[in-house]
Amino acid sequence: MAKINENFLNLKESYLFSDIAKKVDAFTAANPDKTVVRLGIGDVTRPLVPAVIEAMHKAVDEMGDAATFRGYGPEQGYGFLHEAVQGYYKSFGVTLDNDEIFISDGAKSDVANITDLFDQANTVLVPDPVYPVYVDTNIMNGRNIVYLDANEDNGFLPMPPSDVKADMVYLCSPNNPTGATYNYEQLKAWVDYANANGAVILYDAAYESFITEDGLPRSIFEIEGAKTCAIEFCSLSKLASFTGTRCGYTVVPKALTFAVDGKDVALNKLWLRRQTTKFNGVPYIIQRGAAAVFTDEGLAQIRENIGFYQENARIIGETLDELGITYFGGVNSPYIWLKCPNGMKSWEFFDYLLENAAVVGTPGSGFGKNGEGYFRLTSFNNHENTREAMARVKALLKK
Amino acid sequence: MAKINENFLNLKESYLFSDIAKKVDAFTAANPDKTVVRLGIGDVTRPLVPAVIEAMHKAVDEMGDAATFRGYGPEQGYGFLHEAVQGYYKSFGVTLDNDEIFISDGAKSDVANITDLFDQANTVLVPDPVYPVYVDTNIMNGRNIVYLDANEDNGFLPMPPSDVKADMVYLCSPNNPTGATYNYEQLKAWVDYANANGAVILYDAAYESFITEDGLPRSIFEIEGAKTCAIEFCSLSKLASFTGTRCGYTVVPKALTFAVDGKDVALNKLWLRRQTTKFNGVPYIIQRGAAAVFTDEGLAQIRENIGFYQENARIIGETLDELGITYFGGVNSPYIWLKCPNGMKSWEFFDYLLENAAVVGTPGSGFGKNGEGYFRLTSFNNHENTREAMARVKALLKK
Repeated sequence: MAKINENFLNLKESYLFSDIAKKVDAFTAANPDKTVVRLGIGDVTRPLVPAVIEAMHKAVDEMGDAATFRGYGPEQGYGFLHEAVQGYYKSFGVTLDNDEIFISDGAKSDVANITDLFDQANTVLVPDPVYPVYVDTNIMNGRNIVYLDANEDNGFLPMPPSDVKADMVYLCSPNNPTGATYNYEQLKAWVDYANANGAVILYDAAYESFITEDGLPRSIFEIEGAKTCAIEFCSLSKLASFTGTRCGYTVVPKALTFAVDGKDVALNKLWLRRQTTKFNGVPYIIQRGAAAVFTDEGLAQIRENIGFYQENARIIGETLDELGITYFGGVNSPYIWLKCPNGMKSWEFFDYLLENAAVVGTPGSGFGKNGEGYFRLTSFNNHENTREAMARVKALLKK
Repeated sequence: MAKINENFLNLKESYLFSDIAKKVDAFTAANPDKTVVRLGIGDVTRPLVPAVIEAMHKAVDEMGDAATFRGYGPEQGYGFLHEAVQGYYKSFGVTLDNDEIFISDGAKSDVANITDLFDQANTVLVPDPVYPVYVDTNIMNGRNIVYLDANEDNGFLPMPPSDVKADMVYLCSPNNPTGATYNYEQLKAWVDYANANGAVILYDAAYESFITEDGLPRSIFEIEGAKTCAIEFCSLSKLASFTGTRCGYTVVPKALTFAVDGKDVALNKLWLRRQTTKFNGVPYIIQRGAAAVFTDEGLAQIRENIGFYQENARIIGETLDELGITYFGGVNSPYIWLKCPNGMKSWEFFDYLLENAAVVGTPGSGFGKNGEGYFRLTSFNNHENTREAMARVKALLKK
């Protein structure tokens, strides 16, 4: 009799976004005259840039011609895309070998699948509030999860605990959902902690392209010592509107090794084995589109999109400043994480905002216990809607 | 200290294709005047068909326009592609619900990732010779693997063992590497075995589109009782030249359940949870291309390609018949699995063919112990090269 993986039965169903949808639907039905503005959306809205479109059309044509058709590609991605990503890292001072870069269908898949490389017996450190994939994938493997409080006291940037010797540490910076971003010094403390404990840092850099301030690392590999303790996950999703186009990359340094029976085992080699066995590479057409992102033309075009979202974040931040509402993120992140005014709880504020301003956000409590009393707004709508939403919020809360 | 998954250290490195490449390179260097013909290739060579190219160009344009841009899609695929696959199954008499079909980036990923749903304690039955992914992914999970002999006596179609109560059974029909294909009666015996033992059949139907003879099932779900014991993996790789374009589908029937503490747990729900947590869907552009395969126009075009390969298989089979060489496959498969003449071993025949005819195939011993003494040729080259190779083989072996 086949035995299922019973760890799956320990997963909590997430109703966050379906609960939101239900409430919005009910409101719309009861108030057909009101226009709801959604600032809860975690997905990009700007289309793919012309350089990407052009590269993909060309690649589609190549695939239709026997002379230029491509069958199976390397599971870890084509050399042309490795080189493009390598050049991108070089632009913020990080030197990587081509075979330390693995092209994938997105950061989510890799952040999830990386758990294949680790024993069940590891202790996993996860900040709270958190992107649920870190938690759920480790529950699926039956690992012990220790939560680390991210809160107003530490600016939602928890530092290494002195009382927990974790084996696997998840960090996301700029953070989803809080938008908080580690500086060099803070990240160095994490790297030192990991190297001292033989822990591995699983570093989610999916939002690095939103960093605007100086003094903030774009990659954990800007930190000395990171190559012996960290794996970095990155994605073109938010960088270049690839959420529905699917391409990311994971960096596994060759210096990251763990001793087994006195022999050093490199995670780079293990991940290569995992990917060649359980993955078959990203579509050639998509890889050509991704490579176009990293050309001068492509980078100029995507910077316009990112600037578009940053202007929305600025509009939101400006209103919150005027209202005297405490918030995190927004400057180096598409997410604005605000403290619900007047001591309201997350869902209370959600209802209040929906009913009185027809504005939709995401209750912070949906991301973990430390999210209670907080609320996430995103900068992914257009300027007009963002301005309209914030005008309504201002009118409502100024009363 | 992070502990790695030490099961990875039990994996054997596969040198099969690199060993072949080395020998071919050495031969070419020593014989610069000779033209090597490769019939070892396991990859398609015909380009994507016009219907697919047209659909993808259109989808690329949609992604470049804010009005039609698509961000995150459903992890399990778009409805339009579910409906296309549903219609394809209907054409051979199988009725599926839309939510029993999961779109993925290929059969390899799904065949590998499905192991997430099962406990480590399951006993896995794998035929030998075998597609290495079934074995390696279970070694990575530390499961007990029992091999089932596929050989000349059973026509490389092993039947359920009376002495092994397996929990998970891998079947591939038409088979890679042997090309042997189960008929209805044989597959019914497997379904009955699985239902009697509470086993799950992981059915790899990646080559179903090569079936030409009547009386052979295209899907395990043509067999009564299969929906309570089987998961089927299929792919557009060989069907529609998608090896470098990446799209497949997995069918997990809702009737497939396992009791845990007296409660039925549906694998369909578990797989949905796995995919929504660890996968982010196939690119929209690729899904549009895939849907075009299943239109009348697309199907007519891909049938031409499959016919092209089948003509190559016919040419190969004709030569082997003339030479009196025993072989399997070729009729319902792109693979021809031949018994090495004159009692030669697999690598011995490889060297003999390379040195005396400059023809490259794949030694059967690379697929498992029962492959020793066999040799795989494929029908994926063009007509001219296939004819040339077989003329050389005939001249050599007729001596």
